[in-house]
Amino acid sequence: MKVTIVGPGKVGMVLAYTLVLRGVAREVVLVGSNRDKAEGEAIDLMHAQAFQQVPVKVRAGDIDDAADSEVVAVCASVPMLPGFFDRNVLAHDNAELMKKMLPRIAEVAPQCKLVLVTNPVDVITWQALQLTGFPRERVMGTGTLVDSIRFRELLSAMIEIHPDDLRAYILGEHGEHQFPAMSVAQAGGEKIDDSPERRALCERAKHLGIEVFRKKGNTCYAIGQSAAYIIEAILLDEKRTVPLSVLVDGYLGVKDVCLSLPVVVGKRGIERFLQPDLNEVEAEQFREAAKAVRAVIDSLE
Amino acid sequence: MKVTIVGPGKVGMVLAYTLVLRGVAREVVLVGSNRDKAEGEAIDLMHAQAFQQVPVKVRAGDIDDAADSEVVAVCASVPMLPGFFDRNVLAHDNAELMKKMLPRIAEVAPQCKLVLVTNPVDVITWQALQLTGFPRERVMGTGTLVDSIRFRELLSAMIEIHPDDLRAYILGEHGEHQFPAMSVAQAGGEKIDDSPERRALCERAKHLGIEVFRKKGNTCYAIGQSAAYIIEAILLDEKRTVPLSVLVDGYLGVKDVCLSLPVVVGKRGIERFLQPDLNEVEAEQFREAAKAVRAVIDSLE
Amino acid sequence: MKVTIVGPGKVGMVLAYTLVLRGVAREVVLVGSNRDKAEGEAIDLMHAQAFQQVPVKVRAGDIDDAADSEVVAVCASVPMLPGFFDRNVLAHDNAELMKKMLPRIAEVAPQCKLVLVTNPVDVITWQALQLTGFPRERVMGTGTLVDSIRFRELLSAMIEIHPDDLRAYILGEHGEHQFPAMSVAQAGGEKIDDSPERRALCERAKHLGIEVFRKKGNTCYAIGQSAAYIIEAILLDEKRTVPLSVLVDGYLGVKDVCLSLPVVVGKRGIERFLQPDLNEVEAEQFREAAKAVRAVIDSLE
Amino acid sequence: MKVTIVGPGKVGMVLAYTLVLRGVAREVVLVGSNRDKAEGEAIDLMHAQAFQQVPVKVRAGDIDDAADSEVVAVCASVPMLPGFFDRNVLAHDNAELMKKMLPRIAEVAPQCKLVLVTNPVDVITWQALQLTGFPRERVMGTGTLVDSIRFRELLSAMIEIHPDDLRAYILGEHGEHQFPAMSVAQAGGEKIDDSPERRALCERAKHLGIEVFRKKGNTCYAIGQSAAYIIEAILLDEKRTVPLSVLVDGYLGVKDVCLSLPVVVGKRGIERFLQPDLNEVEAEQFREAAKAVRAVIDSLE
Repeated sequence: MKVTIVGPGKVGMVLAYTLVLRGVAREVVLVGSNRDKAEGEAIDLMHAQAFQQVPVKVRAGDIDDAADSEVVAVCASVPMLPGFFDRNVLAHDNAELMKKMLPRIAEVAPQCKLVLVTNPVDVITWQALQLTGFPRERVMGTGTLVDSIRFRELLSAMIEIHPDDLRAYILGEHGEHQFPAMSVAQAGGEKIDDSPERRALCERAKHLGIEVFRKKGNTCYAIGQSAAYIIEAILLDEKRTVPLSVLVDGYLGVKDVCLSLPVVVGKRGIERFLQPDLNEVEAEQFREAAKAVRAVIDSLE
Repeated sequence: MKVTIVGPGKVGMVLAYTLVLRGVAREVVLVGSNRDKAEGEAIDLMHAQAFQQVPVKVRAGDIDDAADSEVVAVCASVPMLPGFFDRNVLAHDNAELMKKMLPRIAEVAPQCKLVLVTNPVDVITWQALQLTGFPRERVMGTGTLVDSIRFRELLSAMIEIHPDDLRAYILGEHGEHQFPAMSVAQAGGEKIDDSPERRALCERAKHLGIEVFRKKGNTCYAIGQSAAYIIEAILLDEKRTVPLSVLVDGYLGVKDVCLSLPVVVGKRGIERFLQPDLNEVEAEQFREAAKAVRAVIDSLE
Repeated sequence: MKVTIVGPGKVGMVLAYTLVLRGVAREVVLVGSNRDKAEGEAIDLMHAQAFQQVPVKVRAGDIDDAADSEVVAVCASVPMLPGFFDRNVLAHDNAELMKKMLPRIAEVAPQCKLVLVTNPVDVITWQALQLTGFPRERVMGTGTLVDSIRFRELLSAMIEIHPDDLRAYILGEHGEHQFPAMSVAQAGGEKIDDSPERRALCERAKHLGIEVFRKKGNTCYAIGQSAAYIIEAILLDEKRTVPLSVLVDGYLGVKDVCLSLPVVVGKRGIERFLQPDLNEVEAEQFREAAKAVRAVIDSLE
Repeated sequence: MKVTIVGPGKVGMVLAYTLVLRGVAREVVLVGSNRDKAEGEAIDLMHAQAFQQVPVKVRAGDIDDAADSEVVAVCASVPMLPGFFDRNVLAHDNAELMKKMLPRIAEVAPQCKLVLVTNPVDVITWQALQLTGFPRERVMGTGTLVDSIRFRELLSAMIEIHPDDLRAYILGEHGEHQFPAMSVAQAGGEKIDDSPERRALCERAKHLGIEVFRKKGNTCYAIGQSAAYIIEAILLDEKRTVPLSVLVDGYLGVKDVCLSLPVVVGKRGIERFLQPDLNEVEAEQFREAAKAVRAVIDSLE
């Protein structure tokens, strides 16, 4: 089971290292613009895998080495300029970057599942669909999975329940127009009440990515884990439910834009698109998110 | 972290073996009426643990060796007679068995968490509370956790979502008076519809324990896993939500009886008792279950 | 990755349960003479797997369902009569049992790797080679792997080093004619001295299987783990070194008999036959073991 | 079980992330000169741990927060200047850095085990002994563990045996004066022959750290794994054998210097110092390594 990681920067390397430690992917190819760096990373990871039970082959390659990959994860990005903290400022340049890579990936690995991590992830996921012509089942962005886990972690600290048992989803845009689907949030069969202090946690969670970025200059562990979680669900055909950025096709009247909704992930990619019973306020937030992402997409053309 | 297993029969040994494989408990004591058999099991497990990363000490002992245990799991039972498939026929004899053991366990391990597996588990859990004087936070029966997992497994096969993501609970009695809390059942933020075919799965799940018993003469893996899951949540302070048989104290008007409800499990035992928002039909089923269990308890006195 | 277990008795079921917990095999078929029992076991295991991250399919089947298995593990055996503790008393009847099953297994799963657990395992492994016509790379018995782990566990308790780091092998027959290859025994680059008290441990280890059998009526955990360890090395292509019962082909002058020697196990089965540098006493013990096993084989014809 | 990591740079953070993924440490404190960065890393890791089964608390702190740590891992280092590839050029400045930190660590965590990663690790380990006054059982450097794993990885690719089964140790200095203890190297009871091509692998392995450094500007995964492996062996009391930089006390006539030798690691730190039976060439290489490290130590005074 082969995984290609395009963009072995901070996020891509946390993803690669996680795959090595978990021993699910058996071959990992690192594709980067700096071949020397990619080779250094591959050698370092080969030594790390020698400590594990399951042997994994890691090597540097170019895009054509993505052939026969089960999954291609795209983490490549132009750098975020210091002082800028809006993912959308990356939209134009990362869109151009995708145009150089994704058509070729689609040619050499026409059956792969594509996991997009590059920001603004909803825009880039939409663009990946255009550039590859892949069906929407095989193109997914990490989206609000990372926002959901941040929210769950804060909530877990407050109400002392394991994050995995806090079935609370942040949906919409991976950005300002995200929102918690509190009307369907549950833990152990009990409704998670939508109190002001929990709303405050959502607000906090929304800005935590930026806060981490300000403090350390990047975010890598939570987002690397998010990508690894999705990829493992694909490779092991786990049929896990996760909120991911996917092409919305009519849900709540929204079409032709990528936003995060809960989906079921397995060996075919997205095995099912779920339809949470949002209340009217949430539905409106979802439509607002759609407009915001659509505006960025339109600005690129 | 020490765990004592009272009753190293088929279920107790699946539990012991699971603890050895998972490497969370570091000391396991097997307490059985047949000391020779318990010693044979302990030696066999010591050899099995030599294959694992984490060393675990396993030994046979008597009840006094339960001292300092974090958890005491009680699996001991009189045998189910062939042809009988009602757990309640064991009530009288197993109640007598508990009278011989539990007071002494409470003396030597006054701070332990008590996990009851012995059937009829709701009755035995209630009795354990009387015999030990332990607070209800430290006395729990495996209850409908095993029924819930059986239901989720059937549901998972039908709708192709990972059982862990199927947040559907079987509650009430671990027996005939159990019921699915379909009004709060969810997967990935989407309601699990309460269709006739899903109802049929619940009925099927309710009788699967008996079906397995008829076919192989016992049930051990799913129930052993259930006990291991609870014990691991305690030892690692995981704060997991699980439906367990606990002393109900006023929920839906029910008092002074043990039934399964979702709770949060951590190092103190039951860290929180959850209150799912059951609909009226389910609430009535819960009260019926209370009456049924109460009747068995009363018949013992 | 499909594994078929022929003989879902105590050992076979520990093996099946271990495979479910470890999540490496994705499909497990249980083939037993009592179909009802096999079905009960399969259902029970399906419920247990619902607690795990990796979904596994378990079902009962007949020998023809072994088709497409990566590995077929044979645990089937006639019962050991009470009071008899010599594995060789099973030779004739188990040899007959193999004649009924192995040719058909070879037909339906001609590419599988065959792992023999049935006793006397050296005799049965030899016979499996005859009955299937498989190359010696794909036919292996659990042999002295279990004796080695028992010895290491005792030694670990004495000298306080992790069993995995005690590179000491019991070789020869899985029976009376086994011996420790002390001349090549090492821990952390340091020779493990061949003192009288360590010799005593070897003697003790040799009889521990029988001791466990006397106490509990069977041995299952250590031997089930041994089989699982081999199977996992095959499925994950781990290239692990293990002492297994294999067809000896000239080593120390021994031919045409199965005995335990260290080998490398990977996806093709036995990837390499190692040749430990035994001293003359050990070499003689190996030749004695060969004669003993040969005598049992000859007695069957 | 609390672990403090001093120096949350590239290596320290791979270590921290690995501890979070493995779930053995339950509390991790990151102590760095840039408090903001340490806090950003801690928040990012808290989100990553929310994906795991075992909850772990990660936070930023200052040295006094090392109190009650089971293990303190020291990864702090002045930067390696571009173009310099000799660990010894860091000796003076890192020695000064240790003087600022280690005495205080010894005060607030007087019972901790100290794991040194900072280079030149043999010199720094020796200095840590002086600065803390700790017994040699509780002070260890990662030493040639990482060189050994690099060698095993190369060897594994050549002879197709799992690295864990390649019992070959690189000993001596973590630097130019390291050597393979080929006279005691084994795999599966078979001697690993000391051929010229294997010697070439040793030479290659010795320079792989520098090669990775040249290519990617640092090495972090293999060394982070090495530290994690040691810490896990301490926290779980595993009694694993590992080559570590320790105070040599008379072995082969060497005293009062730190060099790598195989030791047994458990909850007390180094539980036993092993004495591999080196041949005369190797013994001389060991003594040469001692002189080299001693010379650097002397140059600091």
